[in-house]
Amino acid sequence: MSTWEENVRKVVPYTPGEQPKERKYVKLNTNENPYPPSPKVSAAALSFDALRLYPDPAASDLVHAIAEYHGVSDKRVFVGVGSDDVLAMAFMTFFHSGKKILFPDITYSFYDVWADMLEIPFETIPLTGDYRIDPADYARDCGGIVFPNPNAPTGIALPIEDVRSIISKNPNVVVIVDEAYIDFGGTSALTLLDEFENLLVVRTFSKSRSMAGLRIGYAIGSEKMIAYLNDVKYSYNSYTMNRPSIIYGVESIRDDAYFKETVEKVIKTREAFAEAIRKAGYVVLPSSANFVFASHPTIPAKEIFARSREAGFLVRYFDKPRIDNFLRISIGTDEEMRAYADFLCEI
Amino acid sequence: MSTWEENVRKVVPYTPGEQPKERKYVKLNTNENPYPPSPKVSAAALSFDALRLYPDPAASDLVHAIAEYHGVSDKRVFVGVGSDDVLAMAFMTFFHSGKKILFPDITYSFYDVWADMLEIPFETIPLTGDYRIDPADYARDCGGIVFPNPNAPTGIALPIEDVRSIISKNPNVVVIVDEAYIDFGGTSALTLLDEFENLLVVRTFSKSRSMAGLRIGYAIGSEKMIAYLNDVKYSYNSYTMNRPSIIYGVESIRDDAYFKETVEKVIKTREAFAEAIRKAGYVVLPSSANFVFASHPTIPAKEIFARSREAGFLVRYFDKPRIDNFLRISIGTDEEMRAYADFLCEI
Repeated sequence: MSTWEENVRKVVPYTPGEQPKERKYVKLNTNENPYPPSPKVSAAALSFDALRLYPDPAASDLVHAIAEYHGVSDKRVFVGVGSDDVLAMAFMTFFHSGKKILFPDITYSFYDVWADMLEIPFETIPLTGDYRIDPADYARDCGGIVFPNPNAPTGIALPIEDVRSIISKNPNVVVIVDEAYIDFGGTSALTLLDEFENLLVVRTFSKSRSMAGLRIGYAIGSEKMIAYLNDVKYSYNSYTMNRPSIIYGVESIRDDAYFKETVEKVIKTREAFAEAIRKAGYVVLPSSANFVFASHPTIPAKEIFARSREAGFLVRYFDKPRIDNFLRISIGTDEEMRAYADFLCEI
Repeated sequence: MSTWEENVRKVVPYTPGEQPKERKYVKLNTNENPYPPSPKVSAAALSFDALRLYPDPAASDLVHAIAEYHGVSDKRVFVGVGSDDVLAMAFMTFFHSGKKILFPDITYSFYDVWADMLEIPFETIPLTGDYRIDPADYARDCGGIVFPNPNAPTGIALPIEDVRSIISKNPNVVVIVDEAYIDFGGTSALTLLDEFENLLVVRTFSKSRSMAGLRIGYAIGSEKMIAYLNDVKYSYNSYTMNRPSIIYGVESIRDDAYFKETVEKVIKTREAFAEAIRKAGYVVLPSSANFVFASHPTIPAKEIFARSREAGFLVRYFDKPRIDNFLRISIGTDEEMRAYADFLCEI
């Protein structure tokens, strides 16, 4: 190894779900929305001439539209290149004590990657036997807490009183509630924001707003927290949000009717799909997300995964302890899910 | 201060140039291109329905187009959200030895911000009396080196033999040559890539390609270096480049004729502008960039800055030692620059 290589930050990166270019699969592996973004997005006028100019570094129009949607002041909103960017910056900003941060053992598999990359010590807290977060496990000295609600890849929502309990027992550290899937079920921690100055709620346009291809995430927290986050953002990249993201993002969040309609459709399809495969003997964890986490009592998940792929269905399999007999199945259109349910029932 | 605040990473962020929304200024303060992007960009078809899907995490189409343009393999190209994102990730990846990195005292003012934020020790090396980089100053034990060529905000290019000298004397650390402005003058270090495995050349679409609003930057280096960079990128955010960036970026880099034409225009305008204000007594450093760095022997730069602003011309003033009597003036259209030259000559 050359000398320069010895000093490289060496990391084991997160593995995103496959994004095959051929598009010959029914793609149920990355929790994308089966419906297109709001038609208002395509109607928005992007000035190509203006692409020569830097975007607004504060992305004020987008921040304002999000703040307005949630009924908070603009100073409480932070935006980034997908919720991954927002979470990475939040880790950098708030998990800086040198103490271990806490998150569940079964959860979004990017948390330990960020912690490793940013050299933040961490400890994972096992979920209960029925794959739930027990707030009592988080009542301890630590450097910060992060968990998704609903959790991924289980899809299980944590009751708001349990969320409150975790935050109230950790007033001296920042608690990040990652609500990537909250629009599909569960109660948001946004209602707790006025109670807790150390709470950061993170959201994304990638799931419920059908905008994965645009990369927009945001966080809402106290003005103080957002100011600290912005300092780190402006120390990393002044202009993270490009002009298309700002313009199309504003249109997306303003079209509430379309948003509600598509979210409702996904929820309805999820319930029908879960019901259909439960009847065929599958175990399906109760999902509040746009995916279900399912297992079969006799056929190994790895085998179902491989056979699904052969049959043209792409789902997600995690080769990790405790969940290596489950499949995470994103909710597609009614038609796609009927076809996949038929396939699963036949196996 | 609350306890959670004590553990926040506290930083003094980079201050980007003003981006006034009113557009009533002749905007010569952020080195944007006065000409719109290639018409092929606006002709490219963005599928709005496809925005529901994540972009290709590897941005392969864009990587390939850039690789093809430079005649290197795809494995030697890394892309990011502007060259700031690329540089931030390169700092994280390669400047990890704990030893001091080196860069000029007068240079892109983001370098010390990244170093502070990422807790990388650094030492600044003074430019010579005539604002040049002396390669001899960089022949010393260090944790890495970064400098822009042409340098900012001076606009002065470093001869390629001096670039080679700096790299060849530092085989054990990574040397980053930030070529944000190279298309407007100077000789690129790309020609040295096959000689040095530890060289990273960073470029941007924001200046010569009129795409500041889209945020595309890239780096070219050895396959090994690009692999390390990608590991960090995939540990930070799987999908940094959104669909519009990938699609429009490809069209932009393929339209070489338009690119050359607009770059030539900017260079021609720069030379005419520099000549005009030199005649009126201004000192203008020899520029190889899309801006000039100018000073007046008797009127303080701060005063010219304020009066320019009043008159509707926005330029950049840095309140820093050694350069606080200079203005950085981006090159606009011929018409804009004639108007500003007239204004400067009248003062």
